[in-house]
Amino acid sequence: MNLKIVLRSLGILLICEAIALLPPTLVAFLYQDGDLPAFLITISIVLAVGATLSFIKPTSKNIYARDGFAIVAMGWLLMSFFGAFPFYISGAFPSFIDSFFESSSGLTTTGSSILTAIEGLPHGVLFWRSFTHWIGGMGILVLTIAILPSLGTGSMQIMKAESPGPIVGRIVPKLGKTAKILYSIYLGITLVEVLLLCLAGMNVFDAFIHALGTVGTGGFSNMNASVGYYNSALIDWIITIFMIVCGVNFSLYYLIFKGNIKTFFKNNELRVYLCILLGAILLITVDLLARHTYGSFGEALRFSSFQAASVMTTTGYATADFNEWSMFSKMILLILMFIGGCAGSTAGGLKVSRAIICFKSIKHSLKQIIHPNGYYSVRMDGKKIDDKTVLSVLNYFFIYMIIFTIGIIIISLDGFDFTTTLTSVITTLNNIGPGLGLVGPTGNFSAFSDVSKLVFSILMIIGRLEIYPILLLLTPDLWKKN
Amino acid sequence: MNLKIVLRSLGILLICEAIALLPPTLVAFLYQDGDLPAFLITISIVLAVGATLSFIKPTSKNIYARDGFAIVAMGWLLMSFFGAFPFYISGAFPSFIDSFFESSSGLTTTGSSILTAIEGLPHGVLFWRSFTHWIGGMGILVLTIAILPSLGTGSMQIMKAESPGPIVGRIVPKLGKTAKILYSIYLGITLVEVLLLCLAGMNVFDAFIHALGTVGTGGFSNMNASVGYYNSALIDWIITIFMIVCGVNFSLYYLIFKGNIKTFFKNNELRVYLCILLGAILLITVDLLARHTYGSFGEALRFSSFQAASVMTTTGYATADFNEWSMFSKMILLILMFIGGCAGSTAGGLKVSRAIICFKSIKHSLKQIIHPNGYYSVRMDGKKIDDKTVLSVLNYFFIYMIIFTIGIIIISLDGFDFTTTLTSVITTLNNIGPGLGLVGPTGNFSAFSDVSKLVFSILMIIGRLEIYPILLLLTPDLWKKN
Repeated sequence: MNLKIVLRSLGILLICEAIALLPPTLVAFLYQDGDLPAFLITISIVLAVGATLSFIKPTSKNIYARDGFAIVAMGWLLMSFFGAFPFYISGAFPSFIDSFFESSSGLTTTGSSILTAIEGLPHGVLFWRSFTHWIGGMGILVLTIAILPSLGTGSMQIMKAESPGPIVGRIVPKLGKTAKILYSIYLGITLVEVLLLCLAGMNVFDAFIHALGTVGTGGFSNMNASVGYYNSALIDWIITIFMIVCGVNFSLYYLIFKGNIKTFFKNNELRVYLCILLGAILLITVDLLARHTYGSFGEALRFSSFQAASVMTTTGYATADFNEWSMFSKMILLILMFIGGCAGSTAGGLKVSRAIICFKSIKHSLKQIIHPNGYYSVRMDGKKIDDKTVLSVLNYFFIYMIIFTIGIIIISLDGFDFTTTLTSVITTLNNIGPGLGLVGPTGNFSAFSDVSKLVFSILMIIGRLEIYPILLLLTPDLWKKN
Repeated sequence: MNLKIVLRSLGILLICEAIALLPPTLVAFLYQDGDLPAFLITISIVLAVGATLSFIKPTSKNIYARDGFAIVAMGWLLMSFFGAFPFYISGAFPSFIDSFFESSSGLTTTGSSILTAIEGLPHGVLFWRSFTHWIGGMGILVLTIAILPSLGTGSMQIMKAESPGPIVGRIVPKLGKTAKILYSIYLGITLVEVLLLCLAGMNVFDAFIHALGTVGTGGFSNMNASVGYYNSALIDWIITIFMIVCGVNFSLYYLIFKGNIKTFFKNNELRVYLCILLGAILLITVDLLARHTYGSFGEALRFSSFQAASVMTTTGYATADFNEWSMFSKMILLILMFIGGCAGSTAGGLKVSRAIICFKSIKHSLKQIIHPNGYYSVRMDGKKIDDKTVLSVLNYFFIYMIIFTIGIIIISLDGFDFTTTLTSVITTLNNIGPGLGLVGPTGNFSAFSDVSKLVFSILMIIGRLEIYPILLLLTPDLWKKN
C-alpha cells in the first residue's frame, strides 16, 4: 500500500466533508435551534485534520487497486466517524455510539435510526442527517473525483472500488467528466423532486429532506411516521416514482440525455428490475385486497407500490406498517430487500445484475448436465460474460451470505426475537432502513447494545462498499509496501 | 431420454421396495397390532406395478447421465408414493397427503413428522417408518446397483446422480463392488449401535428403531419425546457418537478397513467437519452454562453435544427442547443445519466439502484483487480443483438459496409466524427433522395445509437428491428422445 497517497487522499476527503457541512450549518443559522455551535466546532476539527493529512507529500504517484480500496474503506469509516460529531455535540443523540450509528446509516444511505422521537430535533441536525444520504448516495468519492482531478491517472481504481454493482460502465473515457455528468444528473433529479414535492403541498424544508433521502435511496425522514405522516396519495406516488427512478443505473440516464432511448429500454437489467418490482407489487396488492387490509384497489396499489419500491430500491421510507401485513407479503418484501436495485444506482442489496448472472449461470449448468459435451456461456445485453466474472459474482453471493451469518450470530447475543435478529442484519447489510419486528417501520434500533450498534454500523459500511474494500483492510497483504 | 430403460429401472426399484417391506411385515405379524393387512396389500400392489414395468424390453442398452437423473428423481418420488400406502391403509395416518409426507420424510432421512402422538401406533408401522430412513440413508439406488448388475455399464451415471456431495469417491473400480462394500460398512455400524443401545438398557425394538434412524441420519423415534424419553446419559452419548460417525464420508471407513488410518485423519473435510462441530458444541455449552440452563458442565456438554450433532448430521433426534434455548444457541444450530454433514455420508445439508470449496474460492478472489496478475487455484486434500468444479459448487449454493426462497414464499401463504415459516423450509430442504417455533423438537408439521405438506415433501426430495435430478425433470430437454 502507498500509505502516503492514501493518507493524503483521506485528507482531501475530509476537506470535502467540511465543505459538505456548510449547507446544514446554513440551515442551523437560519433556524436558530441552538445547533449552530456543533456544526462550527465540527467543521473546525474536520478541516484541521483534513488539511494536516492533505499536506503529506507522496514519494510515488502510483496508485494501485489496493490503494483505491484502502482509500474507499478508510474514507467511509473516517467520514462516518466525523459525520457523527454534529449529532453528538449538539446533544441530539444520547451517546457517541448512537451518533456514529446514525452517521454511518446516513452516509451508507441505509436510513436505519436509533431515534425514538425525530420531530422536534434541531433543523440543522435533521438536514445534516438527510444530507449525508445525498452525499453518500452518489458516492462522495465520485464527488471528490469530479472536484479534485489531483488524484490523476490512478483514479479509475477508486471508481472501481466505489461504483455499486459488478459492471462499471464508463460513460465517457475521461473519469473526471464521467463523475461530473453523473453528478449533474443526480442534482437534476433531486431538484425536480424538491419542486414536485413542494407543488404537492410539502413545505420547502420537508421537500428537501425527503428528496435528499429519496435520491440517495436513504430513507431518513423528519417525521416519526415517515412519509406516512403526510397521508397524501400525490406525495406517495411522487416519492414512489422517484425511488424507482433512483434504483436504476444512472449511466442509463446519460443514454437518454444523448437521445439513445432505444438502448435504454433494451437494457437487460432495467427490464428485469421493473419486472420483479411490478410482479411483487401485483402479488402484494392481490394479497392486501384478499385480506381486506385496504378498502379499494387504488389504495392497496398505492401502499403496496410505495412499500415494494421503498424496500427494493433500499430507500426505506414507509407509508404503512408492513409489520402488520400477512406473512406472504412480508416474505415478498424480504426477498426484494435481498435483491436490491440496479448496479450503478444509489441502491444497495445484491443488485439485479448479479441476480441475473447467477440465474443464467445455473441455467447453463443444467444444460451442461444434459449435454455434457456442449459449451455454454452466460450472456448479458448481447455480450458474453466470461467464466471469471461469473465466478466472481457467485463468490460475491457466497461471501455476502457469510457476512450475513456472522452478523446474525453477533446480534443474537442481544437476545431479541428471531424476526428482529434476522431482519435487523438484513436491513443494515442491504442498506435499507427498516426491517420486521422491533426494527419494523414504526420501530428503531435504540434498544440494541452498544456492541450491536457498532456491528450494525460496520455492516452498513460493508454492504454499501460491496464487502471487498472493508474485507481487504483485514488482509495483511494490503498493508505491505508497494 | 431412454424411456424404456427408465421405466424398466423403476420397475426393478419397486420390486426392491416390495422386498424392503418384508421386515416391517414380519414385525406386524409378530406384534399383531392389526397392521398386517396394510403391509400385505401394499406388497401386492408394489410387486404388481414393479413386475409389469420390469418386463419392458429396452430397445437400446445405452444409459446416459440424463437417464440416470430421471431414474433417481422418479424413483424417489414413486417409492415415497408407494411407501405411504402402509401408513394410509393401516389407518395410522389421517390422510394420504399426511402419509406421503411421512413416507417422503422417511425415505429422504429427514425425520419431520405430522404425527401428534407417536406412542401407541402399531409396531409394524413404526418399524416401516424407521426402516425407510435406513433404506433412504444409504441410497436405495446403491442398494439396487449392488443387487442388480443388470443396469450394466451405464450405472456409474446413477451413482453420480445419487451420491451426496460434490465429489464422488470411487473406492474400487467396479461399481457393484463399491456398493457392496459401502453396504456392508453401513450394516455393520447399524448392528453395533443396536447392540450398544440394548446394553445401555433399551429394549430390542426401540434399539432397532433408533439405530435405523441414527445410521440413516433420519431421526424418527417411536417416542413423542424422541431420545429425551429415555433420560439416560449413556444412551445420549451412544447416539451422539453414532450420529457424528454417520455424518462422515463412508468411503473413509473403507480406508480404515484397509488399514490406511493416516489418510483417514488427514482428510480435509473430516477435519473441518469435526472442528465446526466441536466449535459449535463449545459455544453452546458456554452459553448454556452462562444462562444456567443446566446445573453442571457435564450436563450442558451432554445436551449441547447431542443437539449440535443431531442438527449438523441432519439426524433430528432431540433430548432437549432447543426452542427454549437462547437466541445465540439457536442461531448456532441454525447455521449447522445449513452446513450439514460430509459428502458421501447419509447426512443432508449443503455439505462441509462444498462450504470448504466456497471459502477457499473467496479467499482466492481476495488475493486476486490485491495481486491482479497472480494466479491462484483452489486445492483440497492436496489436489487442484479446477474452476469448473468451483463454479458448479458456487452454482449449487445459489440454486440452493433460490429453492429455499421459493419454498418460503409458498409456505408463507399458510400464515404461520416468521420463525416457523423460515425454519420449516430449512429443516425439510436440509433433511433435518425439527426446526424452531411450531416445528421445534416438541412440535410437528400437522398444522400445515395440504399444499404446504406436499411442498415440504417435494423440498425433502429435492434436498436429498441435491436439487439437480428433480430440477432436470422440469426441463424439456430431459424428455427428448436420445
